[in-house]
Amino acid sequence: MSPGGKKGLDRRDFLGLGAGAAGLFCSLKLSDVEKLNSRDIKRIDAAAASLKKPQRKEARDVVDNYTFATPEPAPGGQIREYWIQATSVLWNPSPTGHDQWMNMDVPSKRYRAFVYQEMTTGFASPLSPASIPGPTLEAEVGDVLRVHFRNADRKFFQAVTMHPHGVRYNPEYDGAYYGDFTRDGGFIGPGEEFTYTWEATKDSVGAWPYHDHGPNHVLNLTRGLYGSIIIRPKGARKPDREYFLHLGSVFPSVSGLDSMIHTVNGRAYAGNTPTLRAKVGEKVAIHVFGMNNDFHTFHMHGHRWPGPGGASTDSPTVGPSETATVKFTEDNPGRYLYHCHVAGHQDAGMSGWYLVEK
Amino acid sequence: MSPGGKKGLDRRDFLGLGAGAAGLFCSLKLSDVEKLNSRDIKRIDAAAASLKKPQRKEARDVVDNYTFATPEPAPGGQIREYWIQATSVLWNPSPTGHDQWMNMDVPSKRYRAFVYQEMTTGFASPLSPASIPGPTLEAEVGDVLRVHFRNADRKFFQAVTMHPHGVRYNPEYDGAYYGDFTRDGGFIGPGEEFTYTWEATKDSVGAWPYHDHGPNHVLNLTRGLYGSIIIRPKGARKPDREYFLHLGSVFPSVSGLDSMIHTVNGRAYAGNTPTLRAKVGEKVAIHVFGMNNDFHTFHMHGHRWPGPGGASTDSPTVGPSETATVKFTEDNPGRYLYHCHVAGHQDAGMSGWYLVEK
Amino acid sequence: MSPGGKKGLDRRDFLGLGAGAAGLFCSLKLSDVEKLNSRDIKRIDAAAASLKKPQRKEARDVVDNYTFATPEPAPGGQIREYWIQATSVLWNPSPTGHDQWMNMDVPSKRYRAFVYQEMTTGFASPLSPASIPGPTLEAEVGDVLRVHFRNADRKFFQAVTMHPHGVRYNPEYDGAYYGDFTRDGGFIGPGEEFTYTWEATKDSVGAWPYHDHGPNHVLNLTRGLYGSIIIRPKGARKPDREYFLHLGSVFPSVSGLDSMIHTVNGRAYAGNTPTLRAKVGEKVAIHVFGMNNDFHTFHMHGHRWPGPGGASTDSPTVGPSETATVKFTEDNPGRYLYHCHVAGHQDAGMSGWYLVEK
Repeated sequence: MSPGGKKGLDRRDFLGLGAGAAGLFCSLKLSDVEKLNSRDIKRIDAAAASLKKPQRKEARDVVDNYTFATPEPAPGGQIREYWIQATSVLWNPSPTGHDQWMNMDVPSKRYRAFVYQEMTTGFASPLSPASIPGPTLEAEVGDVLRVHFRNADRKFFQAVTMHPHGVRYNPEYDGAYYGDFTRDGGFIGPGEEFTYTWEATKDSVGAWPYHDHGPNHVLNLTRGLYGSIIIRPKGARKPDREYFLHLGSVFPSVSGLDSMIHTVNGRAYAGNTPTLRAKVGEKVAIHVFGMNNDFHTFHMHGHRWPGPGGASTDSPTVGPSETATVKFTEDNPGRYLYHCHVAGHQDAGMSGWYLVEK
Repeated sequence: MSPGGKKGLDRRDFLGLGAGAAGLFCSLKLSDVEKLNSRDIKRIDAAAASLKKPQRKEARDVVDNYTFATPEPAPGGQIREYWIQATSVLWNPSPTGHDQWMNMDVPSKRYRAFVYQEMTTGFASPLSPASIPGPTLEAEVGDVLRVHFRNADRKFFQAVTMHPHGVRYNPEYDGAYYGDFTRDGGFIGPGEEFTYTWEATKDSVGAWPYHDHGPNHVLNLTRGLYGSIIIRPKGARKPDREYFLHLGSVFPSVSGLDSMIHTVNGRAYAGNTPTLRAKVGEKVAIHVFGMNNDFHTFHMHGHRWPGPGGASTDSPTVGPSETATVKFTEDNPGRYLYHCHVAGHQDAGMSGWYLVEK
Repeated sequence: MSPGGKKGLDRRDFLGLGAGAAGLFCSLKLSDVEKLNSRDIKRIDAAAASLKKPQRKEARDVVDNYTFATPEPAPGGQIREYWIQATSVLWNPSPTGHDQWMNMDVPSKRYRAFVYQEMTTGFASPLSPASIPGPTLEAEVGDVLRVHFRNADRKFFQAVTMHPHGVRYNPEYDGAYYGDFTRDGGFIGPGEEFTYTWEATKDSVGAWPYHDHGPNHVLNLTRGLYGSIIIRPKGARKPDREYFLHLGSVFPSVSGLDSMIHTVNGRAYAGNTPTLRAKVGEKVAIHVFGMNNDFHTFHMHGHRWPGPGGASTDSPTVGPSETATVKFTEDNPGRYLYHCHVAGHQDAGMSGWYLVEK
């Protein structure tokens, strides 16, 4: 048995990648995803669905023969166990049909999202609704995250994974499709399960995204397959308020809308996006992730905080898979807007409210 | 009377936002502003002009009922008073009609810009010509900036504001349109006045932009409604030379040109953009602001300086509403080019000269 | 004789820039380089080829009359001498015709690249093949880099230069075309030579790109005219493994392909891009340069490292002409993917392998 505790079909049951599928993938020009139509999407999904788990027939390099032990916690550390499934859900980015900031009606329509959902032990039952983003994984330095993952999707028929940022992992737990070099954790087909083990090391401290890194990850990220990881120093106190905001976007061909929407945690337009709350005197942390292919500057009205080098900022750059952490002790009551400072993003949904009580 | 010292029409004289206007705004896709034509611009301006000051009929949240005292300086601090009006002016981004860098002719044409202009006390008379960028607001930690603002425009017929970065303000002085949650400072209609009060706190030290954040801010920023704020530690010495450079762009439908121009302080192409000067031995500070929707890297030939983390750089990233501060003691005489290192920006005007005398 | 040791034709033999050429340059809108066709490219190259070396007939400013001594090393420093020629070569970005990551065929086709090639003393013979990127220039603080440069190209018939980042240079050695203000090092015509002298100062420590900054630099950068500089503290030990990765792209009209490819060191797709190697216990440094007009986040699987402010990162932003330096002591054996985290870049070639042996 593989170190990942792989269940379900053995990888040897699968054939190599068909030439047809490869051709379809190859024709996908992501630089113009806005122009993809729903037929393109169907074609790409069909290619992904036809893709067979790669067989590593022969090692190409000595490193491909390495085997890896499953990491255990450092002395004094714990195993933090999660049960997470990938599933699909009908998701409305703008359930209110209204943008409270610009005071105007916006489209309200559901699309089929692909999301991570937290389950109870043994995948017995949902711990939370299927939503965007997936559950937040928490650990302290010295711990390991043990994530039991199941591809429970019954709509997209394709392999997905969980690929983490920030934590330490060996190649078995990378959670990324690598073509012929793919290991077990990099291709979890429909109905399959895999257990990832990731280490929280000293240099893992911070907030990080995790996301699908399977063969069709670009489409599946726009659909919603992402979540948050927070690693704290041993014994560190949590902030009084802690928020995790994923800046994303949904291609029109996926959302069924006329144009790209720009989202915070899968929602678009103030009143639909998360309304953050805090009270004067509280320690607040807001972790902002770039979860699409754009660069953003995250602006919070009425507040400043130290940037990475210590100088004050109120609109740091955050690029794809980067994190910007906003940290302050709240001292300024009232209603404030947060938004990406790129006009094309903020005006297509990437904004929300922050309410501070006295 | 409101804490902002609001004069002119009472907000209760206005009606709510019409559905038609909302529809027009909603149809503006800023991701393709380059494609907007002059009719689109007229439509958007008409929608902005028809927009009535929001009435906050009912509080939606406890925080919306908060009232705020006007901040006073900290002990030992001062009130720094400014009188600034928004006005329109015919503005030529390239008055020489020539690009000295590439040694070629460029279009020389005026468009109707929207700008901040500094006035004497009581708006008696102009202190400086109406130009881009607006006046630089200066304060030290412990001071308050008291900015008397008048919407003196007679061409665009729409509400504008002053929204500052970096300084501390309560919701009354945020200077941002918030739909139904808008406070007085967030919607200054034609002919109206408002006094903003902003605090220079310890974490305000640095250079920051201010800009329009009214309902039509995206168009009005491309037109030129922005300026600079500099907050220094108490008693700090000014650099010998200090420059504030706003990296912007003007939509073709606004400028009347065939394509986007990329500007420094509203001007395009070396010889039109600011020619900076210094002498060997002088302490130089150049504050560079991202004032459009692009990301830039600001490159200065012949010089390096410490980036935010201390490591040397000569082309830091600066995103929308971010500031990159260039600081060095001059030791390298001669003529040097400064420019954004994005080719599409530098070649469409975002470059200029820096001349260092022995 | 000029301080640069200029050989070949005297600049007074040349006429000023023709109006026709200026018109052609002016019509190049780099914001839509993807749409340039091969006729546009020919037109632009012809304009560049017709451009005459600017004559500085009259000084426009006192600084333009300054003359500059050629810098010598600081006490204890050395002269680091290089002989480099610009030449053209047929270059295949994807020689294997295969993407090992996505396990699919990709186009394999040569285009005419423009590159820097290292030569033996006096340009006697090649020290290395003509390839992308050019040679890495190394020095320690206190040294000077003396770079003998020859424009040996026989295909493009146009002036090129070497413009360095990070090191100190006076205007004579800036290596940039400045229109009428161009000095000798800023316009090296076909068959001409020039010797640049650059100083490695304390604030030059780090890795930097050099690149063409002649009148047609935008096209010539996409063709491959760039390389690396590394300046170390005096006596500093080199890392056990040191890599220099240039993130670039090639316009379709230059590559002859259907769409933009996104490259690492001129190559596209894993198995074609550099395969990096290290062993557990080794000190590794990877210097990543933004060498096109995009912003990137550089992600390395299985690793984290301190960002500029000290906080851990695994996908820092790197913009045009910026450097992100990845530094760690290797402790994680196996095969890992590195890639830009912008989907449109990674899926068009900007990815590769990092193999770590036990």
